[in-house]
Amino acid sequence: MVKPENNAIVIFGASGDLTHRKLIPAFYHLYANGLLPEDFAILGVSRTVYSDQEFRDKLRSALEENEKTDAAILTEFCEHLYYQALNTSDADQYTVLKQRLDIFKDTHHTQGNAVFYLATPPSLYGVIPECLAAHGLNDEADGWKNLIVEKPFGYDLESAISLDKQIHACFQEHQIYRIDHYLGKETVQNLLVFRFANGMFEPLWNRNFIDYVEITASEALGVEDRGGYYDGAGAVRDMFQNHLLQVLAMVGMESPAAINADSIRDEVVKVMQSFKPLSDDDLQQNLVLGQYTESDVRGKHLPGYRQEHGVDDESRTETYVGMKMFIENWRWNGVPFYVRTGKRLPTRVTEVVIHFKKTPHPVFGANAPENKLIIRIQPDEGILMSFGLKKPGAGFESQEVSMDFHYDKLESMNMLTAYERLLLDCMKQDATLFARTDAVKACWKFVQPILDYKEQPEHLFGYAAGTWGPKEADELLINDGRQWRFPCKNLANTDYCEL
Amino acid sequence: MVKPENNAIVIFGASGDLTHRKLIPAFYHLYANGLLPEDFAILGVSRTVYSDQEFRDKLRSALEENEKTDAAILTEFCEHLYYQALNTSDADQYTVLKQRLDIFKDTHHTQGNAVFYLATPPSLYGVIPECLAAHGLNDEADGWKNLIVEKPFGYDLESAISLDKQIHACFQEHQIYRIDHYLGKETVQNLLVFRFANGMFEPLWNRNFIDYVEITASEALGVEDRGGYYDGAGAVRDMFQNHLLQVLAMVGMESPAAINADSIRDEVVKVMQSFKPLSDDDLQQNLVLGQYTESDVRGKHLPGYRQEHGVDDESRTETYVGMKMFIENWRWNGVPFYVRTGKRLPTRVTEVVIHFKKTPHPVFGANAPENKLIIRIQPDEGILMSFGLKKPGAGFESQEVSMDFHYDKLESMNMLTAYERLLLDCMKQDATLFARTDAVKACWKFVQPILDYKEQPEHLFGYAAGTWGPKEADELLINDGRQWRFPCKNLANTDYCEL
Repeated sequence: MVKPENNAIVIFGASGDLTHRKLIPAFYHLYANGLLPEDFAILGVSRTVYSDQEFRDKLRSALEENEKTDAAILTEFCEHLYYQALNTSDADQYTVLKQRLDIFKDTHHTQGNAVFYLATPPSLYGVIPECLAAHGLNDEADGWKNLIVEKPFGYDLESAISLDKQIHACFQEHQIYRIDHYLGKETVQNLLVFRFANGMFEPLWNRNFIDYVEITASEALGVEDRGGYYDGAGAVRDMFQNHLLQVLAMVGMESPAAINADSIRDEVVKVMQSFKPLSDDDLQQNLVLGQYTESDVRGKHLPGYRQEHGVDDESRTETYVGMKMFIENWRWNGVPFYVRTGKRLPTRVTEVVIHFKKTPHPVFGANAPENKLIIRIQPDEGILMSFGLKKPGAGFESQEVSMDFHYDKLESMNMLTAYERLLLDCMKQDATLFARTDAVKACWKFVQPILDYKEQPEHLFGYAAGTWGPKEADELLINDGRQWRFPCKNLANTDYCEL
Repeated sequence: MVKPENNAIVIFGASGDLTHRKLIPAFYHLYANGLLPEDFAILGVSRTVYSDQEFRDKLRSALEENEKTDAAILTEFCEHLYYQALNTSDADQYTVLKQRLDIFKDTHHTQGNAVFYLATPPSLYGVIPECLAAHGLNDEADGWKNLIVEKPFGYDLESAISLDKQIHACFQEHQIYRIDHYLGKETVQNLLVFRFANGMFEPLWNRNFIDYVEITASEALGVEDRGGYYDGAGAVRDMFQNHLLQVLAMVGMESPAAINADSIRDEVVKVMQSFKPLSDDDLQQNLVLGQYTESDVRGKHLPGYRQEHGVDDESRTETYVGMKMFIENWRWNGVPFYVRTGKRLPTRVTEVVIHFKKTPHPVFGANAPENKLIIRIQPDEGILMSFGLKKPGAGFESQEVSMDFHYDKLESMNMLTAYERLLLDCMKQDATLFARTDAVKACWKFVQPILDYKEQPEHLFGYAAGTWGPKEADELLINDGRQWRFPCKNLANTDYCEL
């Protein structure tokens, strides 16, 4: 594999959780696997004052504690770590940042290439690019400059457009990498390969043969220590607007002209722009928002959302979204997509279920077997297909059987975590797996009516923690004579969800 | 399950191998499972003289020796067994047969219903029906009368037509049950359920999406103690003309209007009548006949065909047929079906391999994964599907993976052997799984040019026992840029062939 060009990585928000838990471990693993550039420097930036050595020691112990590390490799890796205390809102202070980057050109041969990673609170996403630009750190005459923006990208349609404008005033679109860690997942990318590398699925992949599609992204955990952030966001912003709609787009998109960033993202955005806009009727009838309430599941007490740390005890924030939506184009017109995500559901699972239509003529009698294809994104990644075979014995009765493939059967030597993959791609100037500006706007545009709708408190339903959401979400499907693959009545709290 | 009406079963050829090895065990199992009629009588008929008791004792010990039996059930079962010595070519002697059947009306309440099973040498298939008719035993005024004819039905087109005429002079088509034990196999019947009970396979099942089809029916054994019969028949008559073409027809047929004998057989015969007739060119280029020669495989000496007991030591009889053929209709035009059967191949396996076309546009690069569906008929009955998934790691490379379903996962409580199923169906007047006269003729008509061709001794190729046939058979596919799923170069002699 070709290594990225030498570069400097500047992490804004270096004292934060994301840096310790995700970014530094990702860089370490990339380094240990020989995937980082020949030379590079990682510069942590935040308000807190550390020396380079203190920063190195801090990260080293965190790595040793949480990851499998090799002492020699770790020592080498830490020699690439640096730290700079900075008030990131103060443009004047960026002089020192520029100086340090200049030094890296000599000490780490970075050739002026740089990744700026915004791992800060969203309120700084607009300011930091302006400060960088004020010092010419957006200028690619002297090496490429990439800006990675963490989610959430905006708070609603208006703020997203405004943030976009602010960043675009300083950086060009090809420099902006909006991260969606769902896109970094092997199995999400696999959706493209599964659909477009095989001759036998794509001919079925349309309204003629597909009855409906389910997409579920459930979490068993509650808000944990993110109560403060989450209470201001909610499930629609936190999961639905970005991850779920991205997965939906990859299920629904047309074949890209080629496998490159723009071709793929052209198709993704086309689907997003084809989401049927939500009418008042849709909001009333096809949307269910929920919030978990305290409950006892299998002898374990689970707190309600309002009892969580950092959450307003009269909060009306939704922790569950269930929706029936449509894609208005030739391929999908009339095919319902039932989409749901939530916290404190019985298990952690993300999967797509394609329900194929039954035979046009039920030659073997009315109770034809269901034909479905399950694409499991996590956990127990894989594919499951169920269909009918002959029931042994006289006659021609059928029964439903299934076969499956588990992704962990494949050699996983090159398996990268989502962050590893995305960081590597960014250093290689490959934006395929990052959200493009038009896609972000299309999603916010689709979601904005939900954000308005959820402001009215009567639109929120309770569900007991550890169940599959409000019963109203089951009714979304029941009214159509269907049911979720895991319906509400399933109260089993399983820690692991088998494909 | 509804039991058949009471009836008498007359087995002609009762002292023969088929009766002991297949028919009586099948009746016993049907009886033990409560599937036979409330009352019934089985009358063995052949030249040899036995008393009823001698016949019962003989069959009882054979059953005890070869099957799992329950002493009490076996005793009950044997009370239904009778014997009548008879020169089956002499119509006069059938008076006593008629008398015995009359007695069964009283002793076993058979109501005049009868199954006549011709388990005799083929030379008697015409005579026995005539003798039966001479005594009115074809007359259904007094209970139904079914005639089961074992294979081979005819020796070539002319003899098949002539035999058919002879039988039809005495019995009507609805009374005639031409047995093909392949059709009694669960997994052959399953072809229909798999194809027509599911909505997701049939849309792909045609020339637009299928590249080519392989059908293999291989045997690891040689001719064993059937050398005398086999040498006069050969693989074309013994396997190809009946079993293989039946399986091919079920792979290729259109959906029947309903699941009943005539609807299904209407579709089967339609495919057979659409086989592209074999031109001289086809025979020269698309047909390979072979005969096994002695060899040593993994330290074991295997005799050549000519060394087998009962085989002429200058025999030119083929023990292998490999062919490329076509179905000329809207669904299949231009799709090659590569079909082969043989003795002394590396393993015993019967399977259908559907090769789907690759993606119309190779968006992920030229080496797209193969998409294929394997329907395994025996052993290890099941379904295997292979397709491409993303190779873990950076980029979008694909790799071939597979998933499978093994039929033995299903509850097999009601699993019937082929003979059990067919005997039961015949007693229930269900001819679905028996070959109809028009189908038999269509197959012979298709095969006749092969029979003529094989008379010319230069058209036979040798292959070492324990290999996948003559190398010329590999070339059938190699010339088209393909290869058999198990190509010739695979010399491994496996006793068991995993799906």
